[in-house]
Amino acid sequence: MAQKLLGNLPKGFVFILSAPAGTGKTTLVRMLSQEFSCVVESVSCTTRPPRPGEVDGRDYHYLSKEEFEGKIRQGDFLEYAEVFGYYYGTSRAYVMKQQEMGKHVFLVIDTQGAMQLKKKQFPAVYIFLSPPSLQELKDRLVKRKTESMEVIEKRLSWAKAEIEMVAHYDYHIVNDSLNQAYTILRSIVIAEEHRVI
Amino acid sequence: MAQKLLGNLPKGFVFILSAPAGTGKTTLVRMLSQEFSCVVESVSCTTRPPRPGEVDGRDYHYLSKEEFEGKIRQGDFLEYAEVFGYYYGTSRAYVMKQQEMGKHVFLVIDTQGAMQLKKKQFPAVYIFLSPPSLQELKDRLVKRKTESMEVIEKRLSWAKAEIEMVAHYDYHIVNDSLNQAYTILRSIVIAEEHRVI
Repeated sequence: MAQKLLGNLPKGFVFILSAPAGTGKTTLVRMLSQEFSCVVESVSCTTRPPRPGEVDGRDYHYLSKEEFEGKIRQGDFLEYAEVFGYYYGTSRAYVMKQQEMGKHVFLVIDTQGAMQLKKKQFPAVYIFLSPPSLQELKDRLVKRKTESMEVIEKRLSWAKAEIEMVAHYDYHIVNDSLNQAYTILRSIVIAEEHRVI
Repeated sequence: MAQKLLGNLPKGFVFILSAPAGTGKTTLVRMLSQEFSCVVESVSCTTRPPRPGEVDGRDYHYLSKEEFEGKIRQGDFLEYAEVFGYYYGTSRAYVMKQQEMGKHVFLVIDTQGAMQLKKKQFPAVYIFLSPPSLQELKDRLVKRKTESMEVIEKRLSWAKAEIEMVAHYDYHIVNDSLNQAYTILRSIVIAEEHRVI
């Protein structure tokens, strides 16, 4: 029987996608899961109450504080964080179940969550998505030098912090154009499925 | 300035592509170099005389036996082999020059040549392309078991030898359909260019 482009493995991979807010990460993962039924976005657990229109199990798995803290104690989270008084976390059981169904699971998590997993040497493909402004910034700093030293230094320090994080990832996509960023993301997933392990 | 999908690096990569004869490797690399001007196929050196229609510098760089052996002594070849009394080899200077022009260079070489480079830890992306029959064979052996033991053993030993070689490569593409194999190869090159080094 002919192979499909994606989804031929008995067990799927985990892909970590981190990006600053507003970079288009959610859109990109949605495009991918719409093209490939074997790609799913992980649904996080949270203690934040559902907002109007949000659906349990689709947007988040909503847990009480007690339930969440019980799961922390039992080591049920691959990674978790507390943000503005609410917990957010990725359920280990949920991710494993998807993988065992042959699904590639995308965890759209911030750099802190990603670095928690990286430190534990959690096997995943780590992808960092940059806003185009970082690229513009680079070009300016390297080529033009038309700004005051103060501005250049401020931008440089921010860029450095970002770039330092990027260094811990396997892939770096600059979201210059959505279609191009999608082609690159899609290529990474296809390439990874054909990697010799 | 917006990034292109491929060809943004000051220095290109080397991609090694090995495949049994008739698998479609030449066609695939030609498709890639036609889509992306930053992808070039390496032109080998040989002492074999040109065949009618072959052009020096396009099909091969034609060298005399003395020239070739001089280059071997000077370490000018990344890899070389003698086949049916003629030498074939990849010029180090040629490949480096292409890379320094920002080109990704494809070396379409057999597993022996590839393993020469691999042993030297030559930095490249190693891709193995299988004919669909290998896939069919796998399916047969694993699922059907309808053939005589003699035939199964013969096929198995051949498959094992092949699979052993595949283990030394980074990626494995099964050429089930040309378009699909092309999408996978293209994805590997795009993904590799976006790898964090």
